[in-house]
Amino acid sequence: MTFDPVASGSTKKLRVAAAQINTTVGDIDGNALLIEEWISLALGQGADLVAFPELTITGYPPEDLVLYDNFITANRAALGRIAASVGEIVAVVGFVDSRNGKLYNAAAVLHRGKIVTTYRKIHLPNYGVFDERRYFSTGDACPVLTIRGIKVGVNICEDIWEPLGPSEVQRAAGADIIVNLNASPYESGKQGHRVDIVTDLSRRNRVFTLYTNQVGGQDELVFDGGSMLAGPDGELIGTAARFEEALLVADIDIVRLEKLRDRHQAYAVPQDELDSIGQPSEYALDVKVREHLPQLSGLSIHRLDRLEAVYRALMLGTRDYVRKTGFEKVAIAVSGGIDSALVTAIASDAIGPENVVGISLPSRYSSEGSLLDARELCSRLGVELWRIPIEPGHAAFEEMLSEVFEGTEPGVAEENTQSRIRGNLMMSVANKFGWLVLTTGNKSEMATGYATLYGDMAGAYAVIKDVPKTVVYELSEHRNKRGPNSPIPQAIINKPPSAELRPGQLDKDSLPPYDQLDRVIHMYIEERMAPDLIIQHEQALPEGGASEAVIRRIIRLVDINEYKRRQSPPGVKITGLAFGKDRRLPIATGWQR
Amino acid sequence: MTFDPVASGSTKKLRVAAAQINTTVGDIDGNALLIEEWISLALGQGADLVAFPELTITGYPPEDLVLYDNFITANRAALGRIAASVGEIVAVVGFVDSRNGKLYNAAAVLHRGKIVTTYRKIHLPNYGVFDERRYFSTGDACPVLTIRGIKVGVNICEDIWEPLGPSEVQRAAGADIIVNLNASPYESGKQGHRVDIVTDLSRRNRVFTLYTNQVGGQDELVFDGGSMLAGPDGELIGTAARFEEALLVADIDIVRLEKLRDRHQAYAVPQDELDSIGQPSEYALDVKVREHLPQLSGLSIHRLDRLEAVYRALMLGTRDYVRKTGFEKVAIAVSGGIDSALVTAIASDAIGPENVVGISLPSRYSSEGSLLDARELCSRLGVELWRIPIEPGHAAFEEMLSEVFEGTEPGVAEENTQSRIRGNLMMSVANKFGWLVLTTGNKSEMATGYATLYGDMAGAYAVIKDVPKTVVYELSEHRNKRGPNSPIPQAIINKPPSAELRPGQLDKDSLPPYDQLDRVIHMYIEERMAPDLIIQHEQALPEGGASEAVIRRIIRLVDINEYKRRQSPPGVKITGLAFGKDRRLPIATGWQR
Repeated sequence: MTFDPVASGSTKKLRVAAAQINTTVGDIDGNALLIEEWISLALGQGADLVAFPELTITGYPPEDLVLYDNFITANRAALGRIAASVGEIVAVVGFVDSRNGKLYNAAAVLHRGKIVTTYRKIHLPNYGVFDERRYFSTGDACPVLTIRGIKVGVNICEDIWEPLGPSEVQRAAGADIIVNLNASPYESGKQGHRVDIVTDLSRRNRVFTLYTNQVGGQDELVFDGGSMLAGPDGELIGTAARFEEALLVADIDIVRLEKLRDRHQAYAVPQDELDSIGQPSEYALDVKVREHLPQLSGLSIHRLDRLEAVYRALMLGTRDYVRKTGFEKVAIAVSGGIDSALVTAIASDAIGPENVVGISLPSRYSSEGSLLDARELCSRLGVELWRIPIEPGHAAFEEMLSEVFEGTEPGVAEENTQSRIRGNLMMSVANKFGWLVLTTGNKSEMATGYATLYGDMAGAYAVIKDVPKTVVYELSEHRNKRGPNSPIPQAIINKPPSAELRPGQLDKDSLPPYDQLDRVIHMYIEERMAPDLIIQHEQALPEGGASEAVIRRIIRLVDINEYKRRQSPPGVKITGLAFGKDRRLPIATGWQR
Repeated sequence: MTFDPVASGSTKKLRVAAAQINTTVGDIDGNALLIEEWISLALGQGADLVAFPELTITGYPPEDLVLYDNFITANRAALGRIAASVGEIVAVVGFVDSRNGKLYNAAAVLHRGKIVTTYRKIHLPNYGVFDERRYFSTGDACPVLTIRGIKVGVNICEDIWEPLGPSEVQRAAGADIIVNLNASPYESGKQGHRVDIVTDLSRRNRVFTLYTNQVGGQDELVFDGGSMLAGPDGELIGTAARFEEALLVADIDIVRLEKLRDRHQAYAVPQDELDSIGQPSEYALDVKVREHLPQLSGLSIHRLDRLEAVYRALMLGTRDYVRKTGFEKVAIAVSGGIDSALVTAIASDAIGPENVVGISLPSRYSSEGSLLDARELCSRLGVELWRIPIEPGHAAFEEMLSEVFEGTEPGVAEENTQSRIRGNLMMSVANKFGWLVLTTGNKSEMATGYATLYGDMAGAYAVIKDVPKTVVYELSEHRNKRGPNSPIPQAIINKPPSAELRPGQLDKDSLPPYDQLDRVIHMYIEERMAPDLIIQHEQALPEGGASEAVIRRIIRLVDINEYKRRQSPPGVKITGLAFGKDRRLPIATGWQR
């Protein structure tokens, strides 16, 4: 898996760079400056070509912003400015192209002050979190650049996820290198899938593939980077770091490729199938061989274990949501439970403990242990902890409601009232000081509605809304292991979960055991399995699994709580199917699973 | 515009029916029963053919429900049951077809116990509130049914909104009648547009067009019916009522059509363009001429004035949201202001005053007039009014926050706190008694963020969230005129709007005049005009319009309040562009208009 960097000072070598940058959706001027800055960095590394992520100028996903004419005009103007500033290097930059009233998800090839050509994306994803057919039309040209006799095909993201796409057209037209621009959002395990796609494409077509991905948080999505270079034997040559900006620079030796091709032919696609994708178009670029190329350090392959990747996704999503919405500080209701402990640790790691304020909101039902645990957590993290007992509000609501509630049994209404008093206090503090509130509900709660709308669900960003409770425990242990320090007190990890909204209340009184719950939620939500299949699956488990009654109850809870989720704040998507734009269901529905 | 009903007791006449029914998304069994019931009604009227709305069996829009295999299976099973029950009549029923792992928005032609053929929608809308390419693949066959020598082409909704579609293929194959199944959501002025589309299609192709639309509320959409029959001269022959279930039955006389065609040829589309749409496929159906046909009453054209149509849309959307989510009663915070007055009138008209509870939540800043106005409103409507003064909560929050707010100036935080105390009280009452809360914010407020998240925005359904404040006034006057009674006291209409969150507070202290505000919001949101164009437009007004500073401030307010709207409850779409799935914008964005 090692790759000897070679000087590109010959006509058969090309030094390429993937600029894995963190753009902000809509910040066209800021993104343009960032692009210019990273073109300079790539030039400094002696790169002949630098590729940026998909829709670099607008950031991804720009959503309905692209339906505003002035947005498209500004994006096109920025591209013109960047093009004018490009000299000897070839820069491939994503932007929204507009032709005859149609929009295209496009990539411009910039060289010596000009836009040499524009590639328009052919495969437009319109599933999951993607809505590209809402905006974009399909391109039909497959440009191939010739640089010192080396042929480079440019395409975008989904184009390489289909078995047949512009890469095959470009390969048939002689492409040695495929440059693929991406805005591929993170989900757990996806980087491995990407590596498979990119290496398989490279081997199948006997090409090098330079895969550039965006990095950074954007509302409910986190882009995790992991840009990479794969070789014509299907080998992964090197990757950029994950969850941070990076410049991946490598020398590509085409002599080696030519030898390989002598031995192994690329798979030949019938011409009519290629024609159904688009036509190749060729552009010769005169890029001089540069003297005194800087020495490159060897490439490496960055790997992260599952929990560390999730933890970094949560940090990056939180940091960028706070920063990109223009805030400095956040407030978190720290209950002494594990969910708020994990969120406080993530926030503290993401934006610094000095920008996090924990708020303890004890009620008459709060245990002494919870208060001590909250204090210990914040103290270990270096996070300030405020304390606002809610008893005055609690008593006032009992007084205000005494007449209309007279003769009723205390129940969920009274519990929710307490949670909403806390929500109000959190929002009051945040409004007063100009902070954001981070909420602390996990995916198991979001799924089953075990959370109070306008109560603990009140806030700007729901950091762990896509993290199942069982993974909350894993991440908490992981955070303590990874350091710095071990901020989450063992007592918080060990104690049985409780909302503490009535005396002696425990989650397990209202919900099935979390291991069962999370398995069923995974099957029902992420795998979209029918209830009968889930029941079969659980019954086939050695230890028996969840009972049919439990499974049907969980599914019913998921279904009837759609209205709550519709009003919940966004949060980081970490699974294959998150609540939010990934999952669009009616609220009013008669469907009984 | 009159059309003489003729007996269809000849081979050149066909009696057709459009069954404009109110399905519930996902209620496959209930929808199937409804379809069978309306097939019987059409049979009773002697119809040879009855057409239902688009995706009749699943309801529209089924959204991600169609991604569940068991949902598709259940929908297909229901179609089989309906088909088995169909006898002499030809029934055209919408359902989701599944072939080789692909889904289609389809219409089945049912006759004598069998599915004769299936049409699969060709033009799939993927803009505005529509996401059909997320789910469906494109069909390519254009069926033409021959019934007693009369040829009938079947297609779906968007298919007739493009200049070239299956209707043209079917016409070229001899179709005399186009049957078009729809789920076309209401927006103000859209019915006129539909009539233009349908009559133009009919004239262009020299065919009759039977247009069936769904009716009923579904989350943020209201389907308004208005099914219609147009003739080959481009004449509108008749329409069904709006906003209610209806069966439109008419006899179509093909002799007349043949004479017309002798004089006027249909526009001929070149064959290669027809081929790009799909191929015609023919099916002969043996439908006997029935004896003793019931006499039909003459057709009429239902027209509603603009405000009455909006009012009915709001009523229907509210009624169906409440009923289809399984609730009986609603609670509304009745402040004595015009927004809550209008919402209370709508709710009372929609589900009956006995199912509406008004709640007055006076604070130390509430005026005596507001309380009296709220009482007068509820008394005129026959709506029960509860009173829960918020002073105990208000004082308690001041106490709880006194330490952390010490030394700060009272401001928006303190105002929002009051609103959130009210939100908590409303939700506590609703949770206790199993009611829904209706919120009362209008579009001008939703646009500018002049509403408190988790405060007055707390609730299940935001009845007037797409109604600009100026239209709130118009609708209130309209409601008083239309009757029954004049429930909204003139004092409520006359007084200057105020949130009453501080002494002497008036909307006009914080917001531009509502006429200016609503014009700018309309241009910026519904017309997607760039700020510079809006400024030009306002400056060109005879009286000068809104100043540049005011316009830029409004646009800024719209932009920075996306986070609030993302957490707002759904409400009835009445304009060309509503907040919700019609308008998808990033929260974290650097775009500066």
